[in-house]
Amino acid sequence: MPVDTAVSIPTLKNIATQLRIDSVKATSEAGSGHPTSCCSAAEIVATLFFSEMRFDPKNPQADQNDRFVLSKGHAAPVLYAAWAEVGFIKRESLLTLRELKSDLEGHPTPRLPFVDVATGSLGQGICAGLGIALNARRIGSDYRTYVLLGDGESAEGSVWESAEMGDHYALDNLCAITDMNALGQSRHTQLSHDGERLANRWRAFGWHAIVVDGHDIEALLKAYAEAKATKGKPTMIVAKTIKGKGISWVEGKDGWHGKAFKKGEELDKVLKELESQFVQAPEPPPIQRPAKAGSAPDLKPKAPGPIPAPDYKPTDSVATREAYGTALVKLGAIDPRIVVLDADVGNSTFSEKFEHKYPDRFYEAFIAEQVMVGAAMGLASRGAIPFPSTFAVFLSRAADFVRMIGISHLNVKFAGSHVGVSIGEDGPSQMGLEDIAMARAVPDCAVLYPADAVSTERLMALAAYHDGPAYIRTGRPKTPILYTANEEFTIGGSKVLRSSASDRVTVVGAGVTLFEALKAYDTLKAEGIAIRVIDLYSLQPVDVATLRKAGQETGAIITVEDHYPAGGIGDAVATAVESVPVPLHRMAVREIPRSGKPEELIDHYGISASHIADEVRRVIAAKK
Amino acid sequence: MPVDTAVSIPTLKNIATQLRIDSVKATSEAGSGHPTSCCSAAEIVATLFFSEMRFDPKNPQADQNDRFVLSKGHAAPVLYAAWAEVGFIKRESLLTLRELKSDLEGHPTPRLPFVDVATGSLGQGICAGLGIALNARRIGSDYRTYVLLGDGESAEGSVWESAEMGDHYALDNLCAITDMNALGQSRHTQLSHDGERLANRWRAFGWHAIVVDGHDIEALLKAYAEAKATKGKPTMIVAKTIKGKGISWVEGKDGWHGKAFKKGEELDKVLKELESQFVQAPEPPPIQRPAKAGSAPDLKPKAPGPIPAPDYKPTDSVATREAYGTALVKLGAIDPRIVVLDADVGNSTFSEKFEHKYPDRFYEAFIAEQVMVGAAMGLASRGAIPFPSTFAVFLSRAADFVRMIGISHLNVKFAGSHVGVSIGEDGPSQMGLEDIAMARAVPDCAVLYPADAVSTERLMALAAYHDGPAYIRTGRPKTPILYTANEEFTIGGSKVLRSSASDRVTVVGAGVTLFEALKAYDTLKAEGIAIRVIDLYSLQPVDVATLRKAGQETGAIITVEDHYPAGGIGDAVATAVESVPVPLHRMAVREIPRSGKPEELIDHYGISASHIADEVRRVIAAKK
Repeated sequence: MPVDTAVSIPTLKNIATQLRIDSVKATSEAGSGHPTSCCSAAEIVATLFFSEMRFDPKNPQADQNDRFVLSKGHAAPVLYAAWAEVGFIKRESLLTLRELKSDLEGHPTPRLPFVDVATGSLGQGICAGLGIALNARRIGSDYRTYVLLGDGESAEGSVWESAEMGDHYALDNLCAITDMNALGQSRHTQLSHDGERLANRWRAFGWHAIVVDGHDIEALLKAYAEAKATKGKPTMIVAKTIKGKGISWVEGKDGWHGKAFKKGEELDKVLKELESQFVQAPEPPPIQRPAKAGSAPDLKPKAPGPIPAPDYKPTDSVATREAYGTALVKLGAIDPRIVVLDADVGNSTFSEKFEHKYPDRFYEAFIAEQVMVGAAMGLASRGAIPFPSTFAVFLSRAADFVRMIGISHLNVKFAGSHVGVSIGEDGPSQMGLEDIAMARAVPDCAVLYPADAVSTERLMALAAYHDGPAYIRTGRPKTPILYTANEEFTIGGSKVLRSSASDRVTVVGAGVTLFEALKAYDTLKAEGIAIRVIDLYSLQPVDVATLRKAGQETGAIITVEDHYPAGGIGDAVATAVESVPVPLHRMAVREIPRSGKPEELIDHYGISASHIADEVRRVIAAKK
Repeated sequence: MPVDTAVSIPTLKNIATQLRIDSVKATSEAGSGHPTSCCSAAEIVATLFFSEMRFDPKNPQADQNDRFVLSKGHAAPVLYAAWAEVGFIKRESLLTLRELKSDLEGHPTPRLPFVDVATGSLGQGICAGLGIALNARRIGSDYRTYVLLGDGESAEGSVWESAEMGDHYALDNLCAITDMNALGQSRHTQLSHDGERLANRWRAFGWHAIVVDGHDIEALLKAYAEAKATKGKPTMIVAKTIKGKGISWVEGKDGWHGKAFKKGEELDKVLKELESQFVQAPEPPPIQRPAKAGSAPDLKPKAPGPIPAPDYKPTDSVATREAYGTALVKLGAIDPRIVVLDADVGNSTFSEKFEHKYPDRFYEAFIAEQVMVGAAMGLASRGAIPFPSTFAVFLSRAADFVRMIGISHLNVKFAGSHVGVSIGEDGPSQMGLEDIAMARAVPDCAVLYPADAVSTERLMALAAYHDGPAYIRTGRPKTPILYTANEEFTIGGSKVLRSSASDRVTVVGAGVTLFEALKAYDTLKAEGIAIRVIDLYSLQPVDVATLRKAGQETGAIITVEDHYPAGGIGDAVATAVESVPVPLHRMAVREIPRSGKPEELIDHYGISASHIADEVRRVIAAKK
């Protein structure tokens, strides 16, 4: 059966050879990189870019383009070579690979317009690709998503989470290809070249799976066609390849992972062999024809917002996690880009409010936090504003994804509920006590920790339209309403809730500890001791001016947090006042906590009102 | 075919009923918990504890006992009920569930002698169970390991990582059971009751898999026997169950996850129905007979150490990651408990040195960091001292496991190489810039960051015998030798490398930045500016006394680190000097870095010697 391709097989073969040559040259010039991992993928990339995918070669970000994710990010040079072949970047620029001045980094990042998500941490690109495929449904486009994985990479559990979610959403617009070159970094992969075993795993997870020779161009084209014809499920093409293919003396050899060929004799020998592989072809390598995919509706609202004002009575008592759900629904109403994901705890995070209202924009990842955050990554890369939601502590399951979202500077707004010892009886495994540290370790990530329902709603709107990632920390227990509906909040702001000219210490709290601080204020006031109380609802960026002023005016700061000391509120405040400096006293959970009632635990671990009052008295006494 | 059991089927049935009653009572008394998730597992737990497993009921920690891991940790009450039935804890104590004073926490922790690893973060217990099964081989014992999972839990990618590793190590001493009750927290699980689909996934991963009715005691016993008879591969028993089994009006009903029955009428009704399920039995419920497993050799060395002194010339230049490999081999020689794991980067972390010398104590997890750390968790729980090793940044893939290791207070010594921008051309996806924050967020975790090969070897020995978890941060580039072989180091110590009475600023570095600080010292000395330089090789605990003294004597501290500011060296120092206080100036990587040459990047991101010298001059000028 002839294969339907506008470009002849010999030409595709020549393109593959050119991709090999460019990958080898670039890595040799850089003195490092993964040429052999590029060589195994050359036919796969050549056929995708020059026969299978529909895209505008001049506009890689066009909404209706088919998408390509290089999940095996260490093969970056072959991706860059493909875009040089397409004509989007200059071939000479390939030789700037891995230089500080160049956007052609060791692993792809979205500094390049043809990269949607940064890859290089294995097993993430496939999750992002899944999110990109979900996005096609969201915007009503028939673009297809192609993801290239490594076989070593397929050991990552996140890959199998993507398998489950691809099955659940029956994503027949998603086609993944495994470059099964049988060699990892340090040894043969577990499955080596047993393509059927790998394919059977994907079949067991509900995917259509095809095993082909990954250097056979016709076989690859047929497999893509079969994938496109397969309805109701995604397809995995297991492409059996040879690492270092085309360079006879390294083909399939262990010990050549991540090694560039030495310039001079070694490189010359490699290039000579590769150049000898060009064949006669009927036409010169083409520039990719423009995309023929249908246009996608423009879902960007002209002016999204403002969201309706919070609607609470001063006497209400509402958990911030519940206000989070309310805010999601309000945001969803004004902006079609808002989407929500959860990991089977939607009835605890209150993301279920959004699911009930906007089921088409809600994605259930079941108990698989990596693909939840990874799919959010992909959705965000294509214009959605995703809120992946789970218990704060289980976001740590996706810590490496959160990190890569930072590298990609994506608009992912992750939300963690059930923080600290104030969750109570479930015990330490369920208590988020290091989530602030994780979020603050992402540069440019806004870290927001509202104490009441009003500030939750207001901060959610700010998070949604913050440029880049944001983290929203919500709590389990009900808390009183602190603010009126029209109170204004800013990312990087804070609220001075108690203040006088005679304040002798500043107490900084957030979330549940803010209410403890307010109780301590009342106790101390009755004793004639005035303290300043600050709601530090923005932990990154932090309100340097207010904290410095408070520190200087009152002479000491006490921070109190339902979190471990490392990386938390105390550290954020320390950074703000470090050069002043102001004596700082941190109250935090300092050991592994136990199960117990919330109020018991808050007291037992030393962050209750009575402990705060004691600490204030101690600090004042020490000042004398 | 009659089933071979010392305890009759009716008695096992009655035990299951008793486990249900105890689980329901305990959760109702606590006012929270997961009775319905206990009820689905009652027959599984009854048959394991009273027919299948061999263990000493008076000594749950005996080396030769069969092991049980409750991976679905939220079913803790049924585990506690089983140990009450065994006679190890008093039945009355079950009613202290989830109280602050009680060790019967909401999810199991090793505060209880019959719990090896804390569970409650799903998908981890099976990885730990795998490590426990590996440990049986290490100590030459024929104990078997049983792990009870939930079906919702099986969505976690880490579960499939354990499937791969169980296959790779052909662990026929491992038997897992999935309590397939078809209901998650918020909805039906993805596979609902399709046991064959789940079993086929395990088969595709190389396991023997059996589907049974999880309430059919004979079927369970036969499945255990089949598992035991299956050689060369682990077994998964998919036990189809009913959530809430035994309580007719909640059986299989959505909306009953994690809800205790209300004391009074509701509870009475439940207990009445359960009590009606007792049957006539030939004997009273037995106390488990003693273990019949063979004894295990005592591998604890009488006095492990000291390890041979480091052997470097003062002119050597050695990467700390390489010294890490050397230290592993030395430790392995003196202590059979030392084991090493890697995730396919052993030729970069240098753990391969250990693998070559002690292949039987080296475990390859391929590119699956969660099961690498999870298996280490299990190994440590049974007396091994495991060093899971990978790039620092990829430890973040296992951040949630690291957290749970902290809760279990296990002797896992995780090691991260390739930290910071000093790795160079590979780019940000490969740079550990938040690993110190992750490690410092584990209370009691020693966080060690050696700058040279000598201190690496010395700190490795300290880490190995530190009580609890430890993190060792190593670097990619070669660095000079700083210390003589007999230099002494302590966890919580530091080294003042440059000091005089006229020091005007203290510069604190560690790893590569220490050498930048020493270069800055030379530059500034030539200008007549004296600075103190401290090697802060222990980041947790931190040397409070030395830092305070230096801060007070020199009037200012500058910290410089190849890490983001959040949670890193600056934060550690800030904590040490917060109450003094001393002006603190943090130099750190403050944005997402790019690819480039190591020395270029160190300078570009502001942590090089020249930047340090500039900062010193600036701080001195500002003091005037």
